[in-house]
Amino acid sequence: MIEQIQLTLRARPRGIHLVTDEILRGLPSLPLKGLVNVFVHHTSCGLAINESYDPDVRHDLEAVLDRLVPENEPGMLHTLEGADDMPAHAKAVLSGVSLVIPISNHRLALGTWQGIYLCEYRNDGGPRRITITIIGK
Amino acid sequence: MIEQIQLTLRARPRGIHLVTDEILRGLPSLPLKGLVNVFVHHTSCGLAINESYDPDVRHDLEAVLDRLVPENEPGMLHTLEGADDMPAHAKAVLSGVSLVIPISNHRLALGTWQGIYLCEYRNDGGPRRITITIIGK
Amino acid sequence: MIEQIQLTLRARPRGIHLVTDEILRGLPSLPLKGLVNVFVHHTSCGLAINESYDPDVRHDLEAVLDRLVPENEPGMLHTLEGADDMPAHAKAVLSGVSLVIPISNHRLALGTWQGIYLCEYRNDGGPRRITITIIGK
Repeated sequence: MIEQIQLTLRARPRGIHLVTDEILRGLPSLPLKGLVNVFVHHTSCGLAINESYDPDVRHDLEAVLDRLVPENEPGMLHTLEGADDMPAHAKAVLSGVSLVIPISNHRLALGTWQGIYLCEYRNDGGPRRITITIIGK
Repeated sequence: MIEQIQLTLRARPRGIHLVTDEILRGLPSLPLKGLVNVFVHHTSCGLAINESYDPDVRHDLEAVLDRLVPENEPGMLHTLEGADDMPAHAKAVLSGVSLVIPISNHRLALGTWQGIYLCEYRNDGGPRRITITIIGK
Repeated sequence: MIEQIQLTLRARPRGIHLVTDEILRGLPSLPLKGLVNVFVHHTSCGLAINESYDPDVRHDLEAVLDRLVPENEPGMLHTLEGADDMPAHAKAVLSGVSLVIPISNHRLALGTWQGIYLCEYRNDGGPRRITITIIGK
């Protein structure tokens, strides 16, 4: 079976957000085993899998990424869309925009502490469209 | 259906290059829905999905990656293949070498502004071999 | 065909480790063509594909990542699990935890110099559980 759904994640402020539940609620019945792809159709936010328990991890991850790719870096040419835009593009390349997660026993086989992050790199990114594709049997 | 093709991307100078059209031209007819994997068989270049419209984004992304992983960093041991080689390996880990993109309505479901980047991290990387695998129905 | 296996990678010290052979030994017969997903169920280690020949590359990659995300960075909140823990989470986002590799002619279609890295970011991370999912025909 191959199934595909489109979802829109509601607008969130800049930051790292746990969206596991929002994605799980959007999923149809999953096959016994297979793969899920979660893909975000934007260039200034990202998806990642990391610690779901302590919100401090999300705070710290954002701080690390902001330090790695600061705003108003000298030499940048793509500046017309705001100081947060080009750093958002670069961070999206670092974290990626596409996740592949196994399905086992009809469930997303995330580890005990793993959750799905929407990494919102824009100050005002708006709703984010994602496509979820399920391949399994 | 599962289909697989090999392509060679022509040699490009060091930099971030938009290769969406070159990849699309290499694709067979796509299924109604499914997934495409694009995989580059090298260790000193990468693949990424990001802004396809403004070439300045590619310029700036390269500048950010060059700053994050500079050449001639003290303490590096893998130096015999040139000052650009070890940074290229590290950047390839940061951006990745394998993309998964959904297929919807017989088309690659990239977002409006999304394109496929070949991130050429070597000064003279030569042609780059990729394998494209399509799973769908 | 869709097949799925669980493996546990033995505990390794902090560092970048080549685990291609350990993963290949765990694989069943592969289909003619398809995709393999390798997914690690943890939040403080990562998976990557890079140079398999010279161990210096693994040394240097770890040095680059340690410089990009140092321990004891000011402003970090998630500090109770040790100085190596929050950097490990951030590095896991940078490298990722999920690989997709094509299968061609019943083999993993890695490039000549490509190997699979377990990036162990904790000082004492213990054994690491992975799920390998094979889709092909």
